[in-house]
Amino acid sequence: MSTLALDLAQALIRCPSVTPEEGGALDLLARVLGEAGFTVERPVFSEAGMPDIENLYARIGTGAPCLVFAGHTDVVPPGDTGAWRHDPFGGTVADGMLYGRGAADMKGGIACMLAAALEHLRAHGLNRGSIAFLIAGDEEGPAVNGTVKLLDWAKARGERFDHCLLGEPTNPQALGDMIKIGRRGSLTGKLTVHGRQGHVAYPHRAENPIPGLIRLTAALTADPIDGGTQHFDASNLEFTTIDVGNPATNVIPAEARAVFNIRFNDRWTAQTLGDEIRARLDRAAGNAVRYALDLLPSNSPAFLTRPDAFVDLVSEAIEAETGRRPALSTTGGTSDARFIKDACPVIEFGLVGETMHQVDECVAVADIERLTAIYRRVLGAYFAE
Amino acid sequence: MSTLALDLAQALIRCPSVTPEEGGALDLLARVLGEAGFTVERPVFSEAGMPDIENLYARIGTGAPCLVFAGHTDVVPPGDTGAWRHDPFGGTVADGMLYGRGAADMKGGIACMLAAALEHLRAHGLNRGSIAFLIAGDEEGPAVNGTVKLLDWAKARGERFDHCLLGEPTNPQALGDMIKIGRRGSLTGKLTVHGRQGHVAYPHRAENPIPGLIRLTAALTADPIDGGTQHFDASNLEFTTIDVGNPATNVIPAEARAVFNIRFNDRWTAQTLGDEIRARLDRAAGNAVRYALDLLPSNSPAFLTRPDAFVDLVSEAIEAETGRRPALSTTGGTSDARFIKDACPVIEFGLVGETMHQVDECVAVADIERLTAIYRRVLGAYFAE
Ligand SMILES: [Zn+2]
Ligand SMILES: [Zn+2]
Repeated sequence: MSTLALDLAQALIRCPSVTPEEGGALDLLARVLGEAGFTVERPVFSEAGMPDIENLYARIGTGAPCLVFAGHTDVVPPGDTGAWRHDPFGGTVADGMLYGRGAADMKGGIACMLAAALEHLRAHGLNRGSIAFLIAGDEEGPAVNGTVKLLDWAKARGERFDHCLLGEPTNPQALGDMIKIGRRGSLTGKLTVHGRQGHVAYPHRAENPIPGLIRLTAALTADPIDGGTQHFDASNLEFTTIDVGNPATNVIPAEARAVFNIRFNDRWTAQTLGDEIRARLDRAAGNAVRYALDLLPSNSPAFLTRPDAFVDLVSEAIEAETGRRPALSTTGGTSDARFIKDACPVIEFGLVGETMHQVDECVAVADIERLTAIYRRVLGAYFAE
Repeated sequence: MSTLALDLAQALIRCPSVTPEEGGALDLLARVLGEAGFTVERPVFSEAGMPDIENLYARIGTGAPCLVFAGHTDVVPPGDTGAWRHDPFGGTVADGMLYGRGAADMKGGIACMLAAALEHLRAHGLNRGSIAFLIAGDEEGPAVNGTVKLLDWAKARGERFDHCLLGEPTNPQALGDMIKIGRRGSLTGKLTVHGRQGHVAYPHRAENPIPGLIRLTAALTADPIDGGTQHFDASNLEFTTIDVGNPATNVIPAEARAVFNIRFNDRWTAQTLGDEIRARLDRAAGNAVRYALDLLPSNSPAFLTRPDAFVDLVSEAIEAETGRRPALSTTGGTSDARFIKDACPVIEFGLVGETMHQVDECVAVADIERLTAIYRRVLGAYFAE
């Protein structure tokens, strides 16, 4: 049984790499990958008004096919550290579980990828093609100075990728549950209904925007946006806030605002979906409701990596180690796969995500060993003659 | 033509009596009433956490019937004084209009009452009964240390009142439009819908309170609360705010809150109306929506002074001076009449309220003279042998 993956996972958890801090996590990866013969680059990306972000790109070999392992070393804040049973940056193992912020999302997954690559190279060398690591430092933040710029940077250098495996924690409950072969898109809209301020005792002299807002919100939630597609659930709209901010109980306000977010499937682009939402609002508003809709720019399109030989190869590796055939899913939130999909086919498979972003985030030590074995099988099959 | 009323109105406007300040307005009334033979009292009322409020009670005569003139000398703030054409505390007369904060609401009305009483006494003396003035200093504020306590104070002294004329600006457009013979009640409710916080990408693990709140608000606004009564319009509910306060567009919030205010007619008490609202919410909520309703204590019941000989007497005085028979109305906001109605029958008639609480508040000088004449007719008829 390998202990390399567990050692690496513990070492990574002990690096306090809360976005945007590198926290020593990329230093650790750079050292280990460098020692294993990878060429390692550490591009730093900037954007006005945002902290600079360190990232990592490593490659061994120059030819095709190039299999890319992708991920991020940054983690969300631990929250109330006093509520944790173990130090969130301690990497403690207790009762067969590895505890710590990032254990599931996704230092554990990165440790497994790294251990699998090192063990594969030690056992077989690089008989053909290349192996690359594409590691971002701001996936949990605005995701502006991470994967998206790292891909541009790599493209400008002439790097070519053939397939990517992103190690996000894709399994809802047990290792082997689920491969993500795509992700829904995300579109956020800000809705404002205009009225005319006045006194509640004289409503005919005012125009209360709240009933109009209720009418529009009800119209957007009354019917499903669609019925789902072959590989996707139905698109889903959630209102995330409604705000009027009127403290006076005898005053009819001038304006009411709501925000919604839609997670949409591959039937739509952000553009066509925005048009559909406007059409529904126009029908509900008629001449009675004066509204404005502000659709925020979206860099989260819906995308799908159609099941093919690479998906089969990964599915078979998972089944061989876990005895379970993973579901091919497009559920859940967005991930950096939305950017990688423009460079090469990308699928996601990692640890069990049940505790991610929570207090006492943890993964089973046995899962770390089995995921490492799965990634080794993938490498073995991918580079088989 | 009397100029006493105009002189008094200008002098009162020049007292900067923005709630809670007395501003010299009650001093002025006390001096003039005292010189005319009234016994004048200046009770000050207190409440923890609130500024002390000065008030005025004056009476001439001790017997019945006692006709009470009621009002308030406090005014709302002038707002942007630079936006006024004339100093809001200047009492300027221009083009036949008297300008200033309180010109309509209701220093003008008080000046007319005072001038009418003085002129009546000068012409006829007090042949029987009594005339009283009940002037509050916080009608535009919380209305806690004004009329309501002044009435308790007078009751404890054994003062007995037979009829009250409150000089609020009751006419929407022209003098003679409208007597208020009652007022709608006011009830404020705070509605909270409870959900469970979560991520928009995993709505099945969360419970968005916003659709529930929309359902409840729609239920409260779908059907009229009632169809009106003999002397009242239909009760009316306005949502004044909805607030969630969730800044994260990818988070489903835990809770959503709304506030509504109902102006209700004499079909309801605050209690029975609250019960009706709860019943409607329960029907709409079913088992699907977890909500809490907090009904704020209301000291604004609906009340009606049934048209009788006193209402006729005032109506006839108005018709004699203006040529118009006033509508008997219960519309508009609340007033101190809601408190006075427990002491004696109360109706309201004053100047034209079109500009009250606004920049360039003003009344026609001719209306001041005519309202004084109306009040004199009321006094003459009321105390006729
Ligand atoms: Zn992640
Ligand atoms: Zn008033």
